[in-house]
Order: sequence, then C-alpha cells, then structure tokens
Amino acid sequence: MAADLETIVGDIVATIGSADDRGSVASYIPELAKVDPGQFGIAIATADGDMITGGGCAVGFSIQSISKVFALTLALGKVGDQLWERVGREPSGTAFNSIVQLEHEHGIPRNPFINAGAIVVTDINLGGHQPRVAIGEMLRFLRYLAGDDDIAINEAVAASETASGFRNMALANYMRAFDNVRHPVDLVLGAYFHQCAIEMSCRQLALAGRYLMLDGRHPDGGRVVSPRRARRINALMLTCGHYDASGDFAFRVGMPGKSGVGGGILAIVPGRASIAVWSPGLNASGNSHLGTLALEELARRAGWSIFSPAPAGS
Amino acid sequence: MAADLETIVGDIVATIGSADDRGSVASYIPELAKVDPGQFGIAIATADGDMITGGGCAVGFSIQSISKVFALTLALGKVGDQLWERVGREPSGTAFNSIVQLEHEHGIPRNPFINAGAIVVTDINLGGHQPRVAIGEMLRFLRYLAGDDDIAINEAVAASETASGFRNMALANYMRAFDNVRHPVDLVLGAYFHQCAIEMSCRQLALAGRYLMLDGRHPDGGRVVSPRRARRINALMLTCGHYDASGDFAFRVGMPGKSGVGGGILAIVPGRASIAVWSPGLNASGNSHLGTLALEELARRAGWSIFSPAPAGS
Amino acid sequence: MAADLETIVGDIVATIGSADDRGSVASYIPELAKVDPGQFGIAIATADGDMITGGGCAVGFSIQSISKVFALTLALGKVGDQLWERVGREPSGTAFNSIVQLEHEHGIPRNPFINAGAIVVTDINLGGHQPRVAIGEMLRFLRYLAGDDDIAINEAVAASETASGFRNMALANYMRAFDNVRHPVDLVLGAYFHQCAIEMSCRQLALAGRYLMLDGRHPDGGRVVSPRRARRINALMLTCGHYDASGDFAFRVGMPGKSGVGGGILAIVPGRASIAVWSPGLNASGNSHLGTLALEELARRAGWSIFSPAPAGS
Amino acid sequence: MAADLETIVGDIVATIGSADDRGSVASYIPELAKVDPGQFGIAIATADGDMITGGGCAVGFSIQSISKVFALTLALGKVGDQLWERVGREPSGTAFNSIVQLEHEHGIPRNPFINAGAIVVTDINLGGHQPRVAIGEMLRFLRYLAGDDDIAINEAVAASETASGFRNMALANYMRAFDNVRHPVDLVLGAYFHQCAIEMSCRQLALAGRYLMLDGRHPDGGRVVSPRRARRINALMLTCGHYDASGDFAFRVGMPGKSGVGGGILAIVPGRASIAVWSPGLNASGNSHLGTLALEELARRAGWSIFSPAPAGS
Repeated sequence: MAADLETIVGDIVATIGSADDRGSVASYIPELAKVDPGQFGIAIATADGDMITGGGCAVGFSIQSISKVFALTLALGKVGDQLWERVGREPSGTAFNSIVQLEHEHGIPRNPFINAGAIVVTDINLGGHQPRVAIGEMLRFLRYLAGDDDIAINEAVAASETASGFRNMALANYMRAFDNVRHPVDLVLGAYFHQCAIEMSCRQLALAGRYLMLDGRHPDGGRVVSPRRARRINALMLTCGHYDASGDFAFRVGMPGKSGVGGGILAIVPGRASIAVWSPGLNASGNSHLGTLALEELARRAGWSIFSPAPAGS
Repeated sequence: MAADLETIVGDIVATIGSADDRGSVASYIPELAKVDPGQFGIAIATADGDMITGGGCAVGFSIQSISKVFALTLALGKVGDQLWERVGREPSGTAFNSIVQLEHEHGIPRNPFINAGAIVVTDINLGGHQPRVAIGEMLRFLRYLAGDDDIAINEAVAASETASGFRNMALANYMRAFDNVRHPVDLVLGAYFHQCAIEMSCRQLALAGRYLMLDGRHPDGGRVVSPRRARRINALMLTCGHYDASGDFAFRVGMPGKSGVGGGILAIVPGRASIAVWSPGLNASGNSHLGTLALEELARRAGWSIFSPAPAGS
Repeated sequence: MAADLETIVGDIVATIGSADDRGSVASYIPELAKVDPGQFGIAIATADGDMITGGGCAVGFSIQSISKVFALTLALGKVGDQLWERVGREPSGTAFNSIVQLEHEHGIPRNPFINAGAIVVTDINLGGHQPRVAIGEMLRFLRYLAGDDDIAINEAVAASETASGFRNMALANYMRAFDNVRHPVDLVLGAYFHQCAIEMSCRQLALAGRYLMLDGRHPDGGRVVSPRRARRINALMLTCGHYDASGDFAFRVGMPGKSGVGGGILAIVPGRASIAVWSPGLNASGNSHLGTLALEELARRAGWSIFSPAPAGS
Repeated sequence: MAADLETIVGDIVATIGSADDRGSVASYIPELAKVDPGQFGIAIATADGDMITGGGCAVGFSIQSISKVFALTLALGKVGDQLWERVGREPSGTAFNSIVQLEHEHGIPRNPFINAGAIVVTDINLGGHQPRVAIGEMLRFLRYLAGDDDIAINEAVAASETASGFRNMALANYMRAFDNVRHPVDLVLGAYFHQCAIEMSCRQLALAGRYLMLDGRHPDGGRVVSPRRARRINALMLTCGHYDASGDFAFRVGMPGKSGVGGGILAIVPGRASIAVWSPGLNASGNSHLGTLALEELARRAGWSIFSPAPAGS
C-alpha cells in the first residue's frame, strides 16, 4: 500500500499542488496575509509506521484552528465529560465566528471547533493558571505527540491576532456575561491566540494526529486518550471540523478533518492514516482550497472514505 | 461474528428493549399517537448475508422520515448532481420543520433530510406525473431493495398526515414562492405524505438498506447506485440524519443513520451491516429514545463505529 | 389654513408629483405590475370639513395593505382587546412577509399590519362565515366611512393575488399549525386577497380615514370607535405602518401612516387631517416613493408632525 | 390646567405610587440592585413654565439609558446627519442588549437607543478625547438644560457597571471588528458607563427634557437643536425608546419616551410638557413598572396622547 501511496501523493503534488486557482490567503490576520499562496505540502503517517510526504512537507505554517483538536483533547483529560455542560457537540450551521447562536442558546457554544467553543475549551485548560502555563502544556503535548521538540509559537502571528481579534473579544466577553468564560477575558484570549499561532509542518502535524487513527494510542505504546474518546473526537471533527462547510467536506472527502485559516487540514482515516495537507489559499468557507481538493483525490484513489467498505487487501 | 452478534442482540432486547423510560410517542400526527410505546424491534443484515433479529423485528411501523433516504436515492438517479442546485448538504442546526433557514437562504433547504429538503426531493421525483405514479415507483424500489413485495402504505396514516400537515404546507408554499417547488403544492405533499406513511418492519428495512453498506450494490449483484453515490448518501446520513441531534448521534453511536418520527432508525456500517431498530417513544430531539440507546450499545460491543479502526478479525 | 393648504398641495403636485425618479412598481402581483408609474394623487380631508385635492385624486388604485387598518378596526369591534392574545403590537424589525419571527414567537405575529398579523385579523373577521360575508361587511364599512357607495373590489387584482400568493399561503398554514388561524386557509386567504384588492381613490381614502383624526367619530356624528381605540390604532400605524421602514417614516414624516404596495399611503394628523397620497412606484422598503416624499414636504410646510408643538394659529 | 395637573399628580402618587406590585429592581448591575423598590417620584415641567411634582421628586436616581437621548443630541450637534451612516433609526424588535441584529446587519446598530447604538454615539462623542472630556461635556450639557449644577455621576454605580458590563464589552468589540467603534473599546465603555451612572432627580430630568417639548429651544430662549432635529429625536423616542416594548408604550401611553434600567422614564408631550417619573421596579421588558402605569394614567386624564386631537381649551 505504501508504494501506491507514494504514487498517489506524487500525482497530487504534481497536479493539484501546482494548480492555478489557489483560493485566497486569509486577510483578517495581518501576519497571515503575508504568506506566499504558491506553497503546498502533504504528509501521511500510516498505521504501519510509514511516512509518505510531498511538496513543502517540512515547511512550518500557522496551525490556527487545528489547535482546537489538541486543546479539546487536553481539556477532556482535565474535566472529562463535564466539558459538555459548557460546550455543545452539534454542527453550528453558521460561520466560524458567529455570535448569533450564542445569544439564542444562552452562551453555550454549539461545538468545540468553532471559535466560541474553543475559547471555552481554553478557559477550561487555563485552570486558574497564567496563559504561559497553559501554552507550555500545549506545546509539550504537541511535541510529545509528534516526537519533535522543535514545535514552537510564532510570536509575530500571536501579536497580530491579538491586535485584530475584536470578534473573538466579543465572543469571549459575551460568554463571560453568561459565566461560561470564567477567567479574565484577556488571559483566556492570550492563551487562545498563542495556541492558534503554533507553527507546525505537515510532517509534524501528521505525526501529532496519529493517536486519532490508533484508537487513542501513541505509536510508542502510551495511551493518549481512551478508544471511546478518540472515536468521539473523530466524530466531532467529521460533523464540525470545517465550520459551515462540514457537511460538504464529509460529502466530498469522507474523513474526520479539522481545518485552520492558515491553510492546513488534519484528516484522519481510523486504523489507517493521519494526514496533513497545507496550502495557504482558502475557499469561500475559509478552508484550504487545494488542501480540500487534495484530500478528495487521496480519498478517492486510496479508497479511504469512512463511508465506504474498507478497500480490498487493506 | 454472527454468533457474537446474536448474543449482543439478545442482550439488547433483554435490557434496553424492556427499559422503563421509553420516551414519548409522537403526538402531532394523530394516527401515530395511537401506537403502543411498549414495542421494540431490531434487525441486522450483515455483509455476509446473515440476518440477526430480535424483539418485534417483523412488526410493521411507519418509516416516516427514513423514506427520505430512499427518495433521495431515486431523485439522484433522475437528475444527478443537479439536485444540489436546489438542496444543500449541510447540517441545518435547527429542528426538522424549521422555516427560518429557508427565509435566510432564499428557499434552498439546507439538506435533503429535513422536511423542506425532502419536499424538494419529492418535487423532483414527481417529474410531471401524478402523485400515485411517484408513490408507485417508490414502493417498487423498496420492494426490490428488500426483496419483499409486502411493503405497503398505511392509508390511515397518510390521511392523518394530510389533515395535520400545516407546517409542511407552509414549507412547500414558501419554497414555491422561490420557485424551488414546481408542481402544485397539494400534489407534492400528496406524494410526500404517502411516502412518509409507508410501513416496513425492521427486517424489511434492514434488507432495504443493504446497498448502502455494499458500496451501492444490491446483494443480488445489481448496482443500485455508484460507489461514490453510496458513500455520499452515507455521509449525508451521518451529518444530517438526526435533525439537530445529528452531531450527538455521530458522537455517541458513530454510524450514518436516519431516524423517523415513527420511532425507526436505519443505520449503516459500511462493509459490515445494515441495521434497523424501532421503538416508538422519542427523545427530546424527535429520535427514537431506545433505538438510539440500542445502536450505541451495538456500536460499542461490536466495535462498529466508523470512527474507530476496524475491529480485529473483522 | 385651507387656503395655505391649497398652495402647498399645488406645489407638491407640481414638483414631487412630476419628479423623474418615481421608484419601481410592485412586480410580484402581476396585475399591479401593469399600473402606469407616471400617476400621482393627493387628497386631504381636514377636521374642519374641507377637502383639498391635487393630481389624480379621483383615480382608483388598489389599497392593498392600507385595508389592514380598516380590517383591524372591524376586528376590534368584534372581539375587543382579546385580539391582542393572537397578535402582538410591536414593530417587527423585518420585511412585510417574513416568516422568521413567527417561528421564534410560536405563531403569534408581531403586529396587525404585517401580512401574518393581518391574516389573523381576517381570520377573526370571518367569524365562521363565508369569505363573501366578511368582504361584504368590509365594503359596507368603507362605503359608510367615505360616504361613497362606489367603492368596489377589482376582481382581476384579487385573482392575480390568489395565483401568486405562495408566501401568504405559507404564513397562513404556518399559523394554522399553531392554531392561530382557525378557519380553512383557503377561506381566510380568499377574504384576505379580496380585501387587499379593494380599489379607492385618494379622495375616498382620505374620507374613509377621518374617524382616526376625529378621536373615533364619524363626521356625521356617529361613533366608529372609542377615543382610546382611535388613539391606539394611530399609535400602531406610527410604530408599525411601514414595515421595516416604520422608524424612518416616523423620523422623516412624523405622522401615523399606513402604506400599501399599490402605492397608496393613508396618514393621519390627529385633530387636523386625514390624508391620502398615491403614486405607484415604490422605494426599496416597498412604500410609495413619491408618496413618502409628498407627506414629508406636507408635514414640513404645514407644521403637521405629531412630534412638534401645534403650529401657531392652528 | 396646572391646577388640574396637581390633582392628577396627587392621585397618581396616592394610588399608583403606593401600589403593591412594584416590579423587580434590575439585578445585573450590583449597585442598582441595592435600591429600595418602595420609591416613586414624578415631575412635570409644562410649556407655560410651571413645575408640578409628587412623591420623591427630588431624590436622585441613576438615569442609565435615559442618557442616550442627551448623548444623541450632543452627537448630532457634532457630526449632523452623518451619524445615520453608523446607526440606523428603526425599532430593533429585540432586547436592549441583543447582538444578533449586529451580525445580520454588519455592525450597524438598529437605532441609537439600544445599547449598541448608544455605544456608537458615545464613540462619536469621544472625538479623539479622553473619556473624562466627553463625560465633562455631557455633565455641563445636562446642567445647562436643567439649570442645575448639582447633577453628578455616581462613581459607585459607574464602577459597578464596569465590572459587570461583559455584554456591553462584547457589543463594543463586535462593532470594532466592523470599524463602527473607532476608539479603544475601554475608553468608549469608560465614557459610556459613566454617562449611564449620572444621577438626576425627576425634577432635574423633567427640566432637562424641556427642549424636546419646545421644538428645540431652551426656556431661556437659546436654541439647543433645530425644530426638525427636536421632532426627529421625539420620533426616535416614540419608535425606539422602550426597547422591544416600544410599540406597547406607544399603544398604551402615546408619548415619546425613554426609559432607563434605573427605573426612570422621560416622556415628552410636544408643546405641552416634559415629564419625568421614577420607580425602581421594572416590568418584564426592563421598563419601570409603576412609571409606565403612571404615564398611562397621566396621558388618559390630561388627554396628552400625541395620537389624539389636542384636548379642548389646551
């Protein structure tokens, strides 16, 4: 299979990776607007321990909302299913930064993968500590998952988010009014913006996601989360991982995935692969344009949709 | 595996099937309100051709919204992906009969599994014919899928829906104002209400759903839909099959599924099983209370979540 | 004053009545789309018994939503303040035919001057009778108020509304689902569409509105409604009479008024005048473009805003 | 008339002022929650220069949102009708602190009398200065209008609002994301919270409101605003002055009015009276319960609705 995958990845880099229509780089975070849209990377960590890569697979990019998956994993470790008293688990049907739903539902965000939900998750992860403590814990967690101590925060991006994050400040203050954010808003957003500004390469990200394909285990044998929790995180990624285009991603690609406005997507094929793709240009829904196409093609050729029978011989 | 499944099904019937808290039978369709809530049935058609059943697996019930899966399959066969110009494929984030989203999105329903979307699908299936033609086609399709010519419409239920279906009349008229319903509203709803009033047993329903576990093939070797289309219908069931509790169903059960207000649920494990459960009492979201619990237990014990690696030896 | 008013009205006809930018004639009712936009009429019935007119003041036009004022007056006479259990009295903040608010507020329309509210008012006025009875009562009421037996229904317009009224059918069915429409929907809408299709001239309309300037009295001495009720109807016209542009009309004109999609506006200056203007072209909010400008100019020159001290010598 | 008014006011104090059902004191601003609900005051400044008072007419209370009328007056003086590019003038149809409408309408608040709109008005009034400059200007303006240099800010209330004002912080940040708040949010809210914390008695408030009954003139002969602007502010008070109960206030009372969560209401009868009432208990819509009843009774007995002909002999 690994040999085939190399061919598929090579083809994807050659065709999709060099397409003319690349979408538009996110403009609302000034530092991200500077990124060269001509870039494309892909990395696949298989359950067998192989790593297949292509394009700029070692180039670091801002993981942005992909961090929400890891933040949720940490928060579930801290408070368990009590988390669901403060965050829902339904698709939102609205944009990533919508505040309408919060008013209709009394400050309880729809799911942990929209901004409002991730802010509550960050509030949980703070646990009474300073932001740097929570951020340090997150970095250590990612370095352990990826087996790579070079993962770090891009401080220029973090500063850029802080300066322009008025809608996130609105969301956090709004939920604070409902007592669903409990630390001071500037501390919560400090941690949130730094976590979004973590930089990883496709290679690092695919490695970090392996526990989600392995039923919650680290390839080193350690248990990151229980099988049930791994399964549930995958389910949330499938239903909520792409904002108001989550249904379309499930329809076209058919894998649990989480996108970030930096152009990255982490996608999981349970039992088979942890995949990271990256291309900075976004489509109208704010998800990587070429990254989505690449995953659609990969799913088709490798037979990796979770909505199909497993491919023969796999 | 089949032996194990028999044990699991037996346990489920013995415990969940006889639970005290059974939810509430739907009251807004008078004829359905008469159904005895004490009933419970389950049937599993496996990819290997086995059939494992329990409880009242041969008792007919009103499939209601489960018919939306089969209606969509027929409509895609007629107009292909042009269907998606008239119906979206995103979770709605709202109740099954909400009209708010329609106003905000110019008469285009969010997905084919909420009432508004299914009404458009029915409008497509009418294709200029009288309702009885479309209903006849639907019955023939279900009889072929299930290999059972006894599937029929409960005319008392159809009449009961017609009399009380004011919200559906509102939805249909509203979409007609946007030219997204094109036949006269009474014809479209005539077909829609009859299709909802089809009666099937768990056994018949599990048989009818087999093409969705078999990548689009009928067990007799015929192709019902292409693999890609089967996969996509499964994806829609996962993200949209349980109204505003679709995320929760994916989280807890982890299978594509479609529920009906008659208390039935059809769930698919690609490559493994087509499952039908039925218990008339509904939970707060309008989905079968015990049916959902039964599927959660089945998924856990059989290891059948699409979000987990395949169980060993399967 | 009357002499001055003649000058003002003459000026308004000469300038505003012949302006180039006339707005757009309503297109969604086919029969109304045929009306010549070059027309303009005005009539002022004063408390002193004078009648000042200008332009096509004797040309009949479709009063459309202006009928909602008279229908409300009749319904209050039948059921009194119980009416407010089925209809609110707040501005809607949304378009005339919005259905969103109905879902959020359980089938209770915001006020009697949006379509949904007027449909409930019509349902009350039916009172178990056939539509023709209610329509006959409405015609007799208007003929009495205006002292003119020539007021009649334009059947071609009524038929045109019936054929295209899908959104109104949606609204009525939706409220029927909440039991806030109690007669069969087709009967209620039959009465509603005929009432909208009543034709009156500016002259007739200004005469019909006199009870609202005279604290509820007919100039012949009879009492149409109590002073309190007249005051309250005026208040509703001020806050709700121009759909989602009611605030702007109050801001710019400063009189209770009710517009119709046929291009007419009835405006009241309590104690002073009942005014009708008509020009078929509508502005973006669906209110007569030149009619609104004419009332703004009249209010300014006559000093007739209800938000100013009474003009000296008046 | 003044003699009659004294009787009416005396009756109102004796009956309504001592009613048992007094509503509920606002609880979300801790300092306001401490106010004794047993209080009631009223003051009427007539166009003739009389002052009729009753109850605790000299007791200071927190004017809260009533300050929005004076802030708007100042802002219109600074930027004129350009203000309306940043704030609408339609009733909102929603609660005073709703954020939903802002998302649907791109950060433009519906009117200057809901919180979001008043925050934009405050942003305009800041004009690049520090909050204390804007607050000083507001105090000087109120002292001039009322002819009373004792009007001051209650710093404990201002501090209390700051600490609990998370929803207002959400609104301000949200509008800053749309560039409709242009100063740093903490400066804008600093000014806003202080302005809300101004204390005035009914007597002072009735005096301050006189320009709105006098077509924009101060009783000392100076012009505060043009007649057109006075009229328009009155119109906005009528359509938007009581949040989502503005229609009901117009219906029952029939005067332009602006309520505050401190239990005060300023009401204007153009050409006749500027009225202040105060009772801390609020009704379900957040407006003074007894204050509203008092104004309804006053309007009825004095014949002061703007929707009636002027009373004989007035």
